[in-house]
Amino acid sequence: MQKVLILGAGRSASTLIQFMLEHAEVYGWYVTIGDIDEALAVEKAGSCKNANGIKFNIKSIESTEIIKENNLVISMLPAMLHLDVAKVCAANGINMLTASYVTPEIKALSESFEKNNACLIMEMGLDPGIDHMSAMQILDRIRGEGSTLNSFETFTGGLLAPSNNDNPWEYKFTWNPRNVVMAGQGNVKFIQEGAYKYIPYQKLFKRTEIIYIPEYGYFEGYANRDSLKYLEAYKLQGIKTLYRGTLRRPGFCKAWDVFVQLGATDDSYEMEDVAAMTHRQFINSFLSYNPYDSVELKLAHYMNLELDSEIMYKLKWLGMFSDEPVGLEKGTPAQVLEQILKKKWTIQSNEQDMIVMWHKFKFVQENEEKEIQSHMVIKGTDATNTAMSKTVGLPLAVTAKLILNGKLKINGVKIPTEKEIYEPVLSELEAYGITFVEHEMEVSA
Amino acid sequence: MQKVLILGAGRSASTLIQFMLEHAEVYGWYVTIGDIDEALAVEKAGSCKNANGIKFNIKSIESTEIIKENNLVISMLPAMLHLDVAKVCAANGINMLTASYVTPEIKALSESFEKNNACLIMEMGLDPGIDHMSAMQILDRIRGEGSTLNSFETFTGGLLAPSNNDNPWEYKFTWNPRNVVMAGQGNVKFIQEGAYKYIPYQKLFKRTEIIYIPEYGYFEGYANRDSLKYLEAYKLQGIKTLYRGTLRRPGFCKAWDVFVQLGATDDSYEMEDVAAMTHRQFINSFLSYNPYDSVELKLAHYMNLELDSEIMYKLKWLGMFSDEPVGLEKGTPAQVLEQILKKKWTIQSNEQDMIVMWHKFKFVQENEEKEIQSHMVIKGTDATNTAMSKTVGLPLAVTAKLILNGKLKINGVKIPTEKEIYEPVLSELEAYGITFVEHEMEVSA
Repeated sequence: MQKVLILGAGRSASTLIQFMLEHAEVYGWYVTIGDIDEALAVEKAGSCKNANGIKFNIKSIESTEIIKENNLVISMLPAMLHLDVAKVCAANGINMLTASYVTPEIKALSESFEKNNACLIMEMGLDPGIDHMSAMQILDRIRGEGSTLNSFETFTGGLLAPSNNDNPWEYKFTWNPRNVVMAGQGNVKFIQEGAYKYIPYQKLFKRTEIIYIPEYGYFEGYANRDSLKYLEAYKLQGIKTLYRGTLRRPGFCKAWDVFVQLGATDDSYEMEDVAAMTHRQFINSFLSYNPYDSVELKLAHYMNLELDSEIMYKLKWLGMFSDEPVGLEKGTPAQVLEQILKKKWTIQSNEQDMIVMWHKFKFVQENEEKEIQSHMVIKGTDATNTAMSKTVGLPLAVTAKLILNGKLKINGVKIPTEKEIYEPVLSELEAYGITFVEHEMEVSA
Repeated sequence: MQKVLILGAGRSASTLIQFMLEHAEVYGWYVTIGDIDEALAVEKAGSCKNANGIKFNIKSIESTEIIKENNLVISMLPAMLHLDVAKVCAANGINMLTASYVTPEIKALSESFEKNNACLIMEMGLDPGIDHMSAMQILDRIRGEGSTLNSFETFTGGLLAPSNNDNPWEYKFTWNPRNVVMAGQGNVKFIQEGAYKYIPYQKLFKRTEIIYIPEYGYFEGYANRDSLKYLEAYKLQGIKTLYRGTLRRPGFCKAWDVFVQLGATDDSYEMEDVAAMTHRQFINSFLSYNPYDSVELKLAHYMNLELDSEIMYKLKWLGMFSDEPVGLEKGTPAQVLEQILKKKWTIQSNEQDMIVMWHKFKFVQENEEKEIQSHMVIKGTDATNTAMSKTVGLPLAVTAKLILNGKLKINGVKIPTEKEIYEPVLSELEAYGITFVEHEMEVSA
């Protein structure tokens, strides 16, 4: 009997755990769910007779011993804890999977995994994960046909599924709210027509692209961190355009930019008197003093907006001008903003999220310019079985299935940019509804 | 004979060293100049028979021993090296002076200095230094008269003295160029009419104040870091407005803001291909790709400027659009920008710099609102004897004189916000031309 250890039983693991429990009996797996919260782990294991829940604390010797009893470990722990787990797996030849970015420290364990005939596949979630696999499949195909790639753009977004609600942002938190508030801080680099390009945070949400996806309509995309890192990973050295981005519904970025320009997403200092602060005072603390003008008027003037503009309406809808207390004892601007946004942007049980991924490839095939677009749209079932949980959990789950059932034999530390990984995984994912739609576009001269 | 050790013989120490050498014989001091560059130290000591120059390396035991032979150490070393010097001084009861900000680690040595009957006076330069002393003198006077302070604003700037040159920025580097490029990054906090206010970097150079100084005309000021730190230092708890800022000539900030908005002052990442980069390519790397528009047009459009505007002229004057190579092998945007700016903003031997400091105090005296403004303007003699070198060096020099001649007896780690320090020091400074002009302003209802 193959034994699997799933570390971390939080909401983001729900699809993964459900899949593993559902398939445990038929494939003869025994699934142990480990979490720092033992009760949660036991609850998740439920009544499945091939599963149990245990307390797991990576810093304890008992927990280290438990790892060694398994054939495969899937870690949904916070990214910084993966290294400790990986060291035990490498030393004992236990396969391991995560959805987190590979780090140099983890990469350095590759030889040790190889020597012990085991693998650690990292970046096996949505983004990173499905993005790597779906892009590499088309990139390898185009290159395999002898065509020359000129441009690759890829965008992903976690959004609210279309509905009749009145939310003018068409957005709610579907993943860690803090990451959404902090999004875009850092360096944005990419290549456009052969030239390196840089966008600072203060311009990021102004430099959006409009993207159209059949059946789903228009989206806007803003650039995401350092696209140059993908030159090597995707073997794209010499490509003229390489751009990675994040998708939102049109109008989101212009409104979000108000928070950026105010300094309301700054996480580097504690604000004064947060305990006594209202939403309105929070906004006013970024505006100059003027006893005769309202906060609304001062903000509109500062940001060069009409008082009755769509952006001002979005801010009002969030309650940014209300006299409601923030409800925190202390905090940075980013923490205060997150707290205010949660009041309106927490997904309700009757709401569904939606993951959208879109790739654009331009290439020259037999002297002819060609363009392919490919997209995936996945909707959540409810607030627990979200599209985010499915698209992060299913790649891990089907990869686990392939490894446990002996269909995928890999050694060393890998990310799923290699054909021998992405082909079987994408093929499995199709069976669970994770599919891409591909269009060849007409190229105008 | 009193023995003084001056650490650091670079340009910023020129006025200090000159003063100490000129007064050494008459007051019976022996001055040792220590620098990591022995030849420079020897050259600075010159032919003065009461002085010598030596190699000084704070990490060597010999250098530590040399400290102990002196009655007073004046450290012009980089700020991070003060702590090592201070530890030796504290343990051996040797007085010490610096122009740098006091740190918690250095403050912790206060008891040790006290126990050994010695002092370490920090922040005894221009800003911090003269600002503390000149402000506290008036603040203490106003409070001493029983008046209530409502507002205190203080601005300092290192500028180019007025001349006939064609420099549209009316600015050159008169101090560490890197600090000028990086200015304003970090948090800006202040209090305005009783409310805490915050300005992010991306809005800092847009939110300027206009300041008029008799005989010298108009200046513009932008906010400087965390003004709230001065609440305690100046005993201003409860004041309604507290604002510290930096002075430039009008129009500077709007033009500088172009660099901020582009991301050209970012120091957090290395640019690609800097070795092959021209000024024009540097600017273009922050602009979107468009094969039909010039870099000038793209920039003007991005920043919402007219092509023939004053701001575009300022950028052209700096050579930002030229095809000249940057001349660096590698660098961050901030390092590349500094390199380009140095080509035009390096002060020439026939040019003079100018230090401007301005304070505004608002208070209620016997139910009447009053306002006092006070300013100091100091011009440099040439590119070596700059106003910056005078205003940083003379406070240290006259304080050294007071201590060595037994006129100032202080124990512990201090900054010059106390009357027993600022009164004698300001009085000495007057004799060397460092004086303030005070105006009582009419207050309109």
